Amino acid sequence: MDKVIEVTELALRDAHQSLMATRMALEDMLPALADLDAAGFWSVECWGGATYDSCIRFLNEDPWERLRTFRKGMPNTRLQMLLRGQNLLGYRHYEDGVVDRFVEKSAENGMDVFRVFDALNDLRNLQRPIQAVRRTGKHAQGTICYTTSPLHTVQAFVDMAAGLVDMGCDSICIKDMAALLKPKPAYDLVSGIKQRCGPNMPVHVHVHATTGVTLVSLMKAIEAGADVVDTAVSSLSLGPGHNPTESLVEMLEGTGFITRLNRERLGRVRDHFARIRPKYHAFLSNIVGVDTDIFQSQIPGGMISNMESQLKQQGAAHRMKEVLEEVPRVRAMAGFPPLVTPSSQIVGSQAVFNVMMGSYKVLTGEFADLMLGYYGETIGPRDPEVMKLAEEKAKKPLITQRPADLLKPEWQELRESALALPGCQSCDEDVLTYAMFPQVAPNFFLHRKEGPKNVGSDPAKNEAGQAAPLRGPVKYAVTFAGKTHDVTVAPL
Amino acid sequence: MDKVIEVTELALRDAHQSLMATRMALEDMLPALADLDAAGFWSVECWGGATYDSCIRFLNEDPWERLRTFRKGMPNTRLQMLLRGQNLLGYRHYEDGVVDRFVEKSAENGMDVFRVFDALNDLRNLQRPIQAVRRTGKHAQGTICYTTSPLHTVQAFVDMAAGLVDMGCDSICIKDMAALLKPKPAYDLVSGIKQRCGPNMPVHVHVHATTGVTLVSLMKAIEAGADVVDTAVSSLSLGPGHNPTESLVEMLEGTGFITRLNRERLGRVRDHFARIRPKYHAFLSNIVGVDTDIFQSQIPGGMISNMESQLKQQGAAHRMKEVLEEVPRVRAMAGFPPLVTPSSQIVGSQAVFNVMMGSYKVLTGEFADLMLGYYGETIGPRDPEVMKLAEEKAKKPLITQRPADLLKPEWQELRESALALPGCQSCDEDVLTYAMFPQVAPNFFLHRKEGPKNVGSDPAKNEAGQAAPLRGPVKYAVTFAGKTHDVTVAPL
Repeated sequence: MDKVIEVTELALRDAHQSLMATRMALEDMLPALADLDAAGFWSVECWGGATYDSCIRFLNEDPWERLRTFRKGMPNTRLQMLLRGQNLLGYRHYEDGVVDRFVEKSAENGMDVFRVFDALNDLRNLQRPIQAVRRTGKHAQGTICYTTSPLHTVQAFVDMAAGLVDMGCDSICIKDMAALLKPKPAYDLVSGIKQRCGPNMPVHVHVHATTGVTLVSLMKAIEAGADVVDTAVSSLSLGPGHNPTESLVEMLEGTGFITRLNRERLGRVRDHFARIRPKYHAFLSNIVGVDTDIFQSQIPGGMISNMESQLKQQGAAHRMKEVLEEVPRVRAMAGFPPLVTPSSQIVGSQAVFNVMMGSYKVLTGEFADLMLGYYGETIGPRDPEVMKLAEEKAKKPLITQRPADLLKPEWQELRESALALPGCQSCDEDVLTYAMFPQVAPNFFLHRKEGPKNVGSDPAKNEAGQAAPLRGPVKYAVTFAGKTHDVTVAPL
Repeated sequence: MDKVIEVTELALRDAHQSLMATRMALEDMLPALADLDAAGFWSVECWGGATYDSCIRFLNEDPWERLRTFRKGMPNTRLQMLLRGQNLLGYRHYEDGVVDRFVEKSAENGMDVFRVFDALNDLRNLQRPIQAVRRTGKHAQGTICYTTSPLHTVQAFVDMAAGLVDMGCDSICIKDMAALLKPKPAYDLVSGIKQRCGPNMPVHVHVHATTGVTLVSLMKAIEAGADVVDTAVSSLSLGPGHNPTESLVEMLEGTGFITRLNRERLGRVRDHFARIRPKYHAFLSNIVGVDTDIFQSQIPGGMISNMESQLKQQGAAHRMKEVLEEVPRVRAMAGFPPLVTPSSQIVGSQAVFNVMMGSYKVLTGEFADLMLGYYGETIGPRDPEVMKLAEEKAKKPLITQRPADLLKPEWQELRESALALPGCQSCDEDVLTYAMFPQVAPNFFLHRKEGPKNVGSDPAKNEAGQAAPLRGPVKYAVTFAGKTHDVTVAPL
């Protein structure tokens, strides 16, 4: 008897977040829901991550309405979301009452599986959201952010998994957001977790495809006992995204492992997104093929482009090489955090400042917070001199407790501020939208009634309407009112 | 101690043949030769396949001069070529004397490793070229064309490998031209060959990347004892091409296997071809990402586009689905040949005719030859009724001997015809060029002195100089003689 390997489909969340800047509109997903629902996935990841932000910032879509639509459209499949621990879907730590309400409302609106992670792998930042999920009776998945450093050993990750199990997680996810997970550590990590946490604790593996090696890592993870793996349908796969779902299905043939996926349904989902993808041409990632430099530099592609634009703004694009060399030093000083939102931006910006202004002459507020424990504990000790500097510049003390312990109940205040906004309805969902995106929510509430805005565009119209920017002079013979003139058009 | 896995780099032959229609000019390869030579490859595949044809047909390049240039530029690395058995690099069977001369001249001009295959896996078509290679003292690699069918079992392929070893081959290559080799059969096949032919018989594995699963297959092949694997530097990888060389290197970390490759040199090779690739934009394959339909249909991508254009010419593009269903039936009738040049074209064309004109109402000359044994023996029996039809229509008898046994010595005649052509030099190399491409060689000899023609083009110039055809009205503000006019330009 073959062992069934379950699959989480990423098309509706991480795939378009990684490949097309999270811009896909709900209306472009709707035609695929019936096939996704019938294809045999363990779950469909479709909410959370950057999708909530993107909905209200770019698409004039109510993210809660999107969730309810998924619930109706996929009645037979688990809906899955990515939750940033105590940050929820925002960019700061929230007080526990807000965390509880967000989780309750998500469950109430249809969410089944909560994948909860913390950028620093600090278990204390995961405790409250995990408890909140357990109270709803939904699936609480504890997440390990995979990275590499002298301190990130298989043993350290296995210890973290044991901590997640103690917390009451229903499953463990290994989340490899930068495609750093090679076949050997994939095998060792899954075996280690299975040995420590018991064969019945489900292990899920989430990898990106960027470095080209991670389908092999999935094979090894499966051989080591992984239960569920994440993939994206082929027409929304590869590059900085994920391995193709169909390739996973085929790869397993004869190996003693099998998926429950229906090839015909998968084919229809693939064809649908193959038609949709060109609409989002303007947002497509520049990364095609693979990038193995990440293994040496530890710097994911998205982070490099952020730093590049920061340097360009300061007229210092030529100093990129120095910045790339500075990043690992800053990361070591900060106690080797995984480089993932928001730690990647924090470390990257500080590296740029160090190169431009001199080592730690300027500290960003976020970097000071990271050094002083306001994002949580790091795996390694942080540099004492830079910590002292941070205390001086930020005028804040070092903390060692859980960051959210410093926060006072904030729901009432958030609720009052939200309800004062034109267009805000008196439901908890709107208050949560305001709580997470106080700068963006007012405008969204004001314009919500105008309905969703699809930022994709007809590729045929694109070609006709938008000429590529000229790179050199072009000569035309223009006949106008009976006379022909030589006209040269050049970029200014 | 880690086992060293050796690597053959495909950038200079199969990679650009698969990705950019074999159009890369020698001058775009030259800057990479020193790094390729120092990177630590077992061999660099750089000649044969379609490159010879492309050199004289499109690039006005003497393929022999290209070979000598490689020899000078990579003095420390084995040069490798792909040879179509008794077809050499042409499209018909050659008499043994011509085969001998071609191999001698290739060795003399610098070739080290001859990978010899036959489209039908008929050992008799491999015997003479393998003997010819052995006489030169160079490396004779016997090749198994991998395919799937009810008759293509691991055992059948292992038997074929044993036949190749008996012939005196120095190594065995498993050649998976359509990316059909899944991890499990990859493991079984390599183990089977190692068991049957002994652990010291080197096994090379060549896979394409089209279906997305074959890097996993390489991992399994390596675990089963494969000695050398084929990859292409990342900037010339994936799609219908091959797995990225750098990903292979990284994938093996900690697995007990290691390559000898130098990351810095690889990085330079990658950067060079990343710069070159956009020049060949016009020739780039449409296939991006992966295609797993091939597993079901058995029809490789290149074959589908051939059949599509055949149907379009007959105004019957809408009948593609019927043709795709007909192909496996025709293949079964023909005794399950692997679908690779030329059998893929022969089977595909016959399928088109069957759909358009009725089953076997029209037989192509090539399909009749295939049915009557003129390409060699197939693994399965061929349909007796269609064979009878072929005899009648082609007015030729069924043959069971080696096809080249029917041929009379032809070198003198080829030599005389070649030397009569303006521009042909009295060297064997030119006679061989004429022998393989009698239609193309005359024009090449005539224009050779004009020197190589690079069909790549500056991508910046492309964008500035060549506007895409308008699909709708475009508005311009044109300032001319001091006055600004609104001008609308629309396609007629």
